[in-house]
Amino acid sequence: MHLVAIGGSDAGISAALRARELAEDADVTVIVADDYPNFSICGIPYHVSGEVPDWRSLAHRTIADLEATGMSLRLGTTAERIDPGAHEVHVRDAAGTSSVVEYDALVIGTGALPVRPPIEGLDRLGPDDGVHVVHSMGDTFGVMSTLTAVAPRNAVIIGAGYLGLEMADALTVRGLRVTQVEQLPQVLPTVDPELGADVAAELRAHGVDVVTDTVVRRITRTEHGPRLRVEGMSRDGMAMERDADIVLVFAGVRPDVALAEHAGAALGVRGAIAVDRTMRTNLPDVFAAGDCVVTHHRLLGATYVPLGTTAHKQGRVAGENAVGGKREFAGSLGTQVVKIFDMAAARTGLRDHEAMSAGFDPVTIASEADDHKAYYPGAHRIAMRWTGDRRTGRLLGVQLFGHQHAEVAKRIDIAAAAIYNDMSVESLSDLDLSYTPPLGSPWDAMQIGAQTWVRSVAGLQP
Amino acid sequence: MHLVAIGGSDAGISAALRARELAEDADVTVIVADDYPNFSICGIPYHVSGEVPDWRSLAHRTIADLEATGMSLRLGTTAERIDPGAHEVHVRDAAGTSSVVEYDALVIGTGALPVRPPIEGLDRLGPDDGVHVVHSMGDTFGVMSTLTAVAPRNAVIIGAGYLGLEMADALTVRGLRVTQVEQLPQVLPTVDPELGADVAAELRAHGVDVVTDTVVRRITRTEHGPRLRVEGMSRDGMAMERDADIVLVFAGVRPDVALAEHAGAALGVRGAIAVDRTMRTNLPDVFAAGDCVVTHHRLLGATYVPLGTTAHKQGRVAGENAVGGKREFAGSLGTQVVKIFDMAAARTGLRDHEAMSAGFDPVTIASEADDHKAYYPGAHRIAMRWTGDRRTGRLLGVQLFGHQHAEVAKRIDIAAAAIYNDMSVESLSDLDLSYTPPLGSPWDAMQIGAQTWVRSVAGLQP
Repeated sequence: MHLVAIGGSDAGISAALRARELAEDADVTVIVADDYPNFSICGIPYHVSGEVPDWRSLAHRTIADLEATGMSLRLGTTAERIDPGAHEVHVRDAAGTSSVVEYDALVIGTGALPVRPPIEGLDRLGPDDGVHVVHSMGDTFGVMSTLTAVAPRNAVIIGAGYLGLEMADALTVRGLRVTQVEQLPQVLPTVDPELGADVAAELRAHGVDVVTDTVVRRITRTEHGPRLRVEGMSRDGMAMERDADIVLVFAGVRPDVALAEHAGAALGVRGAIAVDRTMRTNLPDVFAAGDCVVTHHRLLGATYVPLGTTAHKQGRVAGENAVGGKREFAGSLGTQVVKIFDMAAARTGLRDHEAMSAGFDPVTIASEADDHKAYYPGAHRIAMRWTGDRRTGRLLGVQLFGHQHAEVAKRIDIAAAAIYNDMSVESLSDLDLSYTPPLGSPWDAMQIGAQTWVRSVAGLQP
Repeated sequence: MHLVAIGGSDAGISAALRARELAEDADVTVIVADDYPNFSICGIPYHVSGEVPDWRSLAHRTIADLEATGMSLRLGTTAERIDPGAHEVHVRDAAGTSSVVEYDALVIGTGALPVRPPIEGLDRLGPDDGVHVVHSMGDTFGVMSTLTAVAPRNAVIIGAGYLGLEMADALTVRGLRVTQVEQLPQVLPTVDPELGADVAAELRAHGVDVVTDTVVRRITRTEHGPRLRVEGMSRDGMAMERDADIVLVFAGVRPDVALAEHAGAALGVRGAIAVDRTMRTNLPDVFAAGDCVVTHHRLLGATYVPLGTTAHKQGRVAGENAVGGKREFAGSLGTQVVKIFDMAAARTGLRDHEAMSAGFDPVTIASEADDHKAYYPGAHRIAMRWTGDRRTGRLLGVQLFGHQHAEVAKRIDIAAAAIYNDMSVESLSDLDLSYTPPLGSPWDAMQIGAQTWVRSVAGLQP
């Protein structure tokens, strides 16, 4: 039995690891386009900041670790074509040599590609100019090269999603002055505006120049002084102009499906590869997982939610099924957390408008509570947004913003566990959560939030 | 409608608050034996340590806050007798004046009493001698008086449960040399010995002299030098002797049921007041809640688990039902967390022997994982013990030990939410938990632990 995984990131490696764990007799080959299998792409900002000095530390596992599990890695090797009838992958190595890899089962983990927004100059300018569209380890080396060679003082970051925010944090930690430009009216558009405003305040408190509601139109090289000029326009017609020594672009991603599509794989939401809950594509013995596939969301059904956690889970399911297992991907809740300087923002489940679109009757309220008893030193306030269904009382989503040491990350996970189990908002108060004054309250912050929601909804009844 | 609550701590106040919240027309009276209603007894160690300089800060709510909800407080008033037929409570105030309080519904929240172990001298020596059995705010004032008047340098703490450990931490923070004596073979006997050993190591790392397996037999006043001598004997017959300026005794608690029992309330496990899931006793219109009652445990049924979190929940249920509601206490899982110096120990659900006694077929394994990606600075290792049922795969219990900033408290709550929902250990890997390198891993530590358990059990199959 020969399992082939295309892609050396979370999905492909997870599939390979799981197959090796379950089937000692399975041959497993992973085709890796670059030389960096199993790297923690989410860790790139912390290498850029200097907090992780050696980029090699970003490997979840070393090549030796991976090979010790019995898998084979074909590094620097590009999968050029899948022949699903013949069960073959046609590859080309770094030296340009083509070959054919036969498979019994295939896992496509080609991931995503960064979106290149239609900014004038972005097509001509690149890493050598200090302009970086950052997505891979290779891109990261380009950024580090600019940082060391040019010693930039001013940066413009285009995009204020998770990675853009983390990179604003990172470059500020490195001592750069950062301007963050976001075309939407708020930073971190994946949370409600109220929490987006909290995030913006944290950015500004650390000196980041936050520019929202503004589309970048043009990047040009300048003759003198700072090397780059970034120009844009706000929604209400105000011109924006910033000089910079380095420009980073984080405009989101799109699924990398060319290989799969060419082989006849059906596509779905957002053009991602369509898979069932077992991570099977429509092609025989071909699975797909990670940022290249349509993801089952427990509350929404088919969605596109590219996340590392999801890629790990989907890859593990694909790998298990590829060697004869019967596992289903349980589904995503879009749970995410991001650290921005001293603070953390987190969400799970649905926001109000998402729940509305999905046919729920959502009520969303704001609440806040301390992470632990206020009398014990170091208590931090957690801002919360709770979304539940008015008719059924079901918990649909929670968003949190609080200090990075306020256990925001694992508090959102309590909500994720509750939503996974279809709990009502009210029943959160029944959970037997831990308490000691330095680390909690007799009613945890999560229960205070839930109780606030229940009271609010009761107040809305006729 | 007149609701009377006896007891000004978590259960009584929670009942009163809930009744006032739900029934604006309900008269609510709380009979408080001392002058400190709604105090955070769990916070006492942090006042003793000096981290909470003003003891008044330990109030969850001030008397003014409580009265603003519309409840009446009768401070310094002892309930001497309940006449359930007449629906009367006979009380005596601080001036010695007796009176009768009529009720339509009564909530008994008399709490617990500290166990006074059979130590020679403990009956004769008291706060003036520097010997303190600590349970109430009044006891705390006694301790503070010794600390300020005598400026003790050496302390002996008898008992190494939660409060004993927290007080060892507190007195060490104050600069005292502390000896902690525990009659069982390990400190923190509510977790497995492996984690107890971790706790002992943390105590010793901060200079605490940890003496286990040793029963204190005698406390005597000395003529010269340190005022007190503490003598004991280890299980294997070794004599123990320590001089001390202050001795604190934490030998556990027993339910305070004299008042209820005299009125005819049925008792149950450990002599606690028997109640049903609505917190009703066998007496008409009489509820009971908190440390004085038998607690419903979701996995064990009737137990005695005195905890502040449980008292809050039970009091809330009692208060709601006292004004006509139909609420059931959902049950405890015995979830607890304690901070010891820089570390935290937490548990929820059952340990192996508890699960065995309850008729499960438990398997318990050890695992460990980092709280966040090791490449990001400040990662801490979390030691875990996972207990699940071999036959059904059901998650039964988790124990954690890790740095206080490793989100151990809220990680145990993920397990508490999972057990509440009857999840299998295996399905923990399906939870969509949050991830960012500074605050987690793609597979959270809790999922690493669950996967270790699943692999171990698979390895045990024939």
